[in-house]
Amino acid sequence: MALHTDTIAALATPPGESGIAVIRVSGVDALSALSRVLRTPAGEAFRGEWEHRRLYHGRFVAADGTPVDEVMAAVMRAPESYTGEDVAEISCHGGSAVVARVLESLFAPDVRPAQPGEFTRRAFLNGKMDLIQAEAVADLIHARTELQRSVAERQLRGALSRRIDALADDMLGLLGLIEANIDFIEEDIDALDVPESLARIERQRAEIDDLLASAAFAGPLRDGSRVVIAGPVNAGKSSLFNRLVGESRAIVTEIPGTTRDVLRESVSIDGVPFVIHDTAGLRDTAPDRVESIGIDRARDAARAADVVVFVIDGSESLPAETRRALAQLDVDRAVMVVNKVDRPVHGDPPIRSGLTVVRASAETGEGLGELKASLLRVARSDELTRMARDRVILNARLAALLESAREPLADLGRAIRDREALEILAARARDVLS
Amino acid sequence: MALHTDTIAALATPPGESGIAVIRVSGVDALSALSRVLRTPAGEAFRGEWEHRRLYHGRFVAADGTPVDEVMAAVMRAPESYTGEDVAEISCHGGSAVVARVLESLFAPDVRPAQPGEFTRRAFLNGKMDLIQAEAVADLIHARTELQRSVAERQLRGALSRRIDALADDMLGLLGLIEANIDFIEEDIDALDVPESLARIERQRAEIDDLLASAAFAGPLRDGSRVVIAGPVNAGKSSLFNRLVGESRAIVTEIPGTTRDVLRESVSIDGVPFVIHDTAGLRDTAPDRVESIGIDRARDAARAADVVVFVIDGSESLPAETRRALAQLDVDRAVMVVNKVDRPVHGDPPIRSGLTVVRASAETGEGLGELKASLLRVARSDELTRMARDRVILNARLAALLESAREPLADLGRAIRDREALEILAARARDVLS
Repeated sequence: MALHTDTIAALATPPGESGIAVIRVSGVDALSALSRVLRTPAGEAFRGEWEHRRLYHGRFVAADGTPVDEVMAAVMRAPESYTGEDVAEISCHGGSAVVARVLESLFAPDVRPAQPGEFTRRAFLNGKMDLIQAEAVADLIHARTELQRSVAERQLRGALSRRIDALADDMLGLLGLIEANIDFIEEDIDALDVPESLARIERQRAEIDDLLASAAFAGPLRDGSRVVIAGPVNAGKSSLFNRLVGESRAIVTEIPGTTRDVLRESVSIDGVPFVIHDTAGLRDTAPDRVESIGIDRARDAARAADVVVFVIDGSESLPAETRRALAQLDVDRAVMVVNKVDRPVHGDPPIRSGLTVVRASAETGEGLGELKASLLRVARSDELTRMARDRVILNARLAALLESAREPLADLGRAIRDREALEILAARARDVLS
Repeated sequence: MALHTDTIAALATPPGESGIAVIRVSGVDALSALSRVLRTPAGEAFRGEWEHRRLYHGRFVAADGTPVDEVMAAVMRAPESYTGEDVAEISCHGGSAVVARVLESLFAPDVRPAQPGEFTRRAFLNGKMDLIQAEAVADLIHARTELQRSVAERQLRGALSRRIDALADDMLGLLGLIEANIDFIEEDIDALDVPESLARIERQRAEIDDLLASAAFAGPLRDGSRVVIAGPVNAGKSSLFNRLVGESRAIVTEIPGTTRDVLRESVSIDGVPFVIHDTAGLRDTAPDRVESIGIDRARDAARAADVVVFVIDGSESLPAETRRALAQLDVDRAVMVVNKVDRPVHGDPPIRSGLTVVRASAETGEGLGELKASLLRVARSDELTRMARDRVILNARLAALLESAREPLADLGRAIRDREALEILAARARDVLS
């Protein structure tokens, strides 16, 4: 039954110093390997069979009998384990020398180092999870915010798999109906209930569109919505950036090259991932050109941003150029912050119909809560959150797959309406499934 | 019986992305907390008592019932657990959002975040280990080389504790003998077997000295023996440094400020920790002064080093200054490397009686094995290894404690020889024990 004849082992927890490190061993020889390395606390061999879902306390010994560490070993027997194979999880002290010696002692002709992702690959190959669930494991591990976690967790539990499976089953059912009639003498479309088949195809099309609609949220969910802080100099953009980042829950990013220098920070606002960009980063231009550059940059940034936060100084009158830039903002993707409201306000800022306006003070923190709420609203985070809570989010791979099924599905519908031969219909239905 | 009425929880594995993260919960409410957060895979409550040393597979749910992750929970009941209290270890997927939500869901009026080292502190307070063993846990986690690991592991198993305990027991026995005789009418030294008591004190003194002798190895064991590469410029010091570091097993240090710039690398040679320093780091002096500065530095470095590796260019004749520096080397703590033996050799280098000489080529790697063996020998690593294998290594705290017992022990011996009153002897013996 086991697909693999070799046994693999690897550190399953992050490297580093800690109370516990877990080394996972999986495969046909996992339990005989455990018998080789685990002794009772008194140093004797364990007797009898390793019991499923039991914890053993003992002494880990190297091949030459050297005691390596005091450990706990958890035994899970096939198929009731993560990989579907026999698994032993050894919890030792989390030090680099201990982990190195434990792994070294486990590796033997019958046990080899696991490759990255290999435990999950085996779980997939042994039918413990489907490909969507295997992807969800990776998403769950990389989740930095509560929203990312909740989507990945639902997909791991099979929410998305069930919808994709239902779709495939439905098409298989239709194909079955078509094929069942091919062998009859009357190889005729009349053997098929045409209106019912067309209705079925329409339902499938609607389901695919519905699933694809969620794919638009995959990017913002994975990478965070892109917020660009723009506006003229001296409006307090950097202070607002610092305030916004400081009051949000920072996400420690591991994107190479991400440093404070680039003035980009990943944060979680109400569990939703955002990346906040401060365009005030490169200000060392000639003073007379600064204002227009600030505005140029706002314009450039606006194109790539999910939300533009346009900051003006509420205590000063607005130059004509700033008014022009403001007039060009896409109101559906922008928030105007009237900053420095802790100071005497200079008249009323220009109002644009539909533009979200927040009065704030980066100095005192006033209006920050309102700004965050506006960001969530303008970034359609409510929709993302609702999607994430009630439904599923397609990743790029699945979106491409479903996208590629749309045309064959339309072809099939046309072929049925055109009353083509069943052979042709069957070929079309197979196209959809492929 | 439990010393603590509160329950603590914390991540027991390093932060980071990985297959598994383990959250440990310990205390009187650990298992009721588990009942609160763990459901069966189908989402139902677990029935019955949590069973000791059993693994439970299920769904972790937040307080509001939101599924957080698919987890395994290991149950260890007091007193058969690490801390001696009821313990649940929850293995979830190793992502930051998952871990954050799991911890957040665990924390409640009855469960609070554990402080660093608090699980081990409870193990100590609950009598699961003594102070020496608790220190050994920290040593085991920080162990970077096999030698460090093996010493910590032996001390965790109680090798050192037993010797210290035996010492204390022996003195307690003597104190008991003295006190037992105090209450007799004849409060006289004759109640005591004087030669036997003196022999006993002498045995204790020898044992203390023996233990203290190992303390000299605590520094090299913990921090690594300090190797300084010195010698005139252009002898190939930096190449040799790079070669030595490259061919050894690098230790990733977490000492703040350790960068490649300071030309210091921690490596493990045959499991023994070394820190290799390259004195060629600061060469930007006036060219005419360079040679003498290289030699000055070698002299300075030699004072702080456990081993000086003095490198000369075997293909060139030696300047008088280099010969003088060579003459000043402490032969017991130095290795002379005659480098560039891949080139035509210029005559014979000067020989100093007792100085270890290695012919090598940093270019080709020739002689590197011999150099490493020489480092192990000169750094007395064989002695360190033997100490580590057969005996125990005292840390600074224990060394200071035992050191402070030496004088009172000598006083007690003198008092017995002087046939002082038993009351006085008892006071002296108590001094030793304190």
